[in-house]
Amino acid sequence: LKIFSLSSNRALAQEIADIVGMELGKCSVHNFSDGEIQINIEESIRGCDVYVVQSTSSPVNHNLMELLIMIDALKRASAKTINIVLPYYGYARQDRKARAREPITAKLVANLIETAGATRLITLDLHAPQIQGFFDIPIDHLMGVPILGEYFKAKNYTKDEIVIVSPDHGGVTRARKLADRLKAPIAIIDKRRPRPNVAEIMNIVGHVDGKVAILIDDIIDTAGTITLAAKALEENGAKEVYACCTHPVLSGPAIERIESSNIKELVITNSIALPAEKKIDKIKELSVASLLSEAI
Amino acid sequence: LKIFSLSSNRALAQEIADIVGMELGKCSVHNFSDGEIQINIEESIRGCDVYVVQSTSSPVNHNLMELLIMIDALKRASAKTINIVLPYYGYARQDRKARAREPITAKLVANLIETAGATRLITLDLHAPQIQGFFDIPIDHLMGVPILGEYFKAKNYTKDEIVIVSPDHGGVTRARKLADRLKAPIAIIDKRRPRPNVAEIMNIVGHVDGKVAILIDDIIDTAGTITLAAKALEENGAKEVYACCTHPVLSGPAIERIESSNIKELVITNSIALPAEKKIDKIKELSVASLLSEAI
Ligand SMILES: Nc1ncnc2c1ncn2[C@@H]1O[C@H](COP(=O)(O)O)[C@@H](O)[C@H]1O
Ligand SMILES: Nc1ncnc2c1ncn2[C@@H]1O[C@H](COP(=O)(O)O)[C@@H](O)[C@H]1O
Repeated sequence: LKIFSLSSNRALAQEIADIVGMELGKCSVHNFSDGEIQINIEESIRGCDVYVVQSTSSPVNHNLMELLIMIDALKRASAKTINIVLPYYGYARQDRKARAREPITAKLVANLIETAGATRLITLDLHAPQIQGFFDIPIDHLMGVPILGEYFKAKNYTKDEIVIVSPDHGGVTRARKLADRLKAPIAIIDKRRPRPNVAEIMNIVGHVDGKVAILIDDIIDTAGTITLAAKALEENGAKEVYACCTHPVLSGPAIERIESSNIKELVITNSIALPAEKKIDKIKELSVASLLSEAI
Repeated sequence: LKIFSLSSNRALAQEIADIVGMELGKCSVHNFSDGEIQINIEESIRGCDVYVVQSTSSPVNHNLMELLIMIDALKRASAKTINIVLPYYGYARQDRKARAREPITAKLVANLIETAGATRLITLDLHAPQIQGFFDIPIDHLMGVPILGEYFKAKNYTKDEIVIVSPDHGGVTRARKLADRLKAPIAIIDKRRPRPNVAEIMNIVGHVDGKVAILIDDIIDTAGTITLAAKALEENGAKEVYACCTHPVLSGPAIERIESSNIKELVITNSIALPAEKKIDKIKELSVASLLSEAI
């Protein structure tokens, strides 16, 4: 057994190695002057079960290519199995043809990872669980909900004080799972646009008045949806609003929006490494290291 | 027949379309806020022979992923054939295991392009012609030498005035081809390092004294090799030094080095689009548009 880290999540990879009780494998990952990636594995891995920790988070194309090149190097160095620990699966939102002549990039990425030579994938909260079926190799699909649930459980709210809220229809199943753990009821933000080019109406299905509302999503990207949802919850009488997600993409205006929103605390995991400039007081990071280690 | 351009070489793609006598196909290529690429093909291509013009030049991982996503979109939109016009093949220099536990990224890239669904590849001056064998789909492998040769022919040197110089042993075949076209003799820069950590000695095999020397290479990247070679030629009595290459990667200190070198003129092709800040007086750009159009 050997565990290697690529560039996206070195701290998480180190944590996983510590839990498993071994050193990270030695490999050098550089960029040539023209931006091409150069990888060299610096210890023998012949006949080994190799684990590679990498998220295809931003810069997504770079991190994906780094992963594919690493898989190629491991394959040619006669690894017995090549197991990819992919805490965040980039391009997961392009998982179907929503319009004519669109690609299905999530499937393309699956094909690329298999073609490179991966033999197993361990991943977390895929945007659509159907992406599992894009692969022919075995997949372990882990859930962030238990980790987020433990965190909120420790706050010792009674079940009548809180309500778990899905920011859209697509996320109701996820909200239900968190609600089960906290024995709490759920509510749903029911957005609709009465006419094109008219602001969306944020209707809330469920009772939030006087309650602590906990919004949950899989990915928070530009944070538009979640901050608007938080505002609607407040307007509908919620006492306090928390938000949580597994994958903190947090691109563009996200940090600014969260900072200036009525969200009291945003709880995330380290499936995507948060750069220093995004570490604001409101954000609480939980680790998925022990969850991922169990699958190794 | 439809021709589409991606982001790397729009001007060249337009030139090719003009020569073939048609409009470029409509497709939108955007980046989402988090850096993921979004492509939509905006006209029907069902049953068509589609050509896509893209070099995997810098930013190489982005441009490669753009190409793969485009191929995926074309495949799902029922293109009859998907023909890739790849004037510059990125990662071509990683074409063998030079050390233990290295990847062979040029082969990985071939597999990715085939997996995505390309049915034919048209490319130019592969760093190693063996890369053709990395593919199972048909390849048209074109040569830049005739274009470079025509340019120097027009300078009307007599065959005794000039000498074609290869900057290393690997490039002698290429230098020979250019020399044949100009009916000129060749010379070779024969570098060797007497001991480790000692400067290389630039020995010249062939006669350059009093002559106009024309250096030729496939790729000029950081321009270290070519500018040192030019200096050695001058020191050995060359009257004037020209340099030429098919692929102007020109990364890092390249432009500065060329500017301050004794190279009188650097002749390149537009296989890689030269950004405005690299367009210096010394550089003369020739177009490969008509060469590529002939293969369409
Ligand atoms: N990286 C991205 N950033 C923003 N939107 C995306 C991204 N990738 C895909 N999408 C869009 O997000 C939608 C999918 O999200 P969903 O409807 O929640 O499954 C589709 O309309 C996609 O076009
Ligand atoms: N993008 C790159 N920039 C600089 N050197 C590279 C690059 N890709 C590969 N190489 C190295 O260039 C050498 C191959 O060049 P060659 O010996 O001329 O075929 C190998 O030692 C590679 O490690």
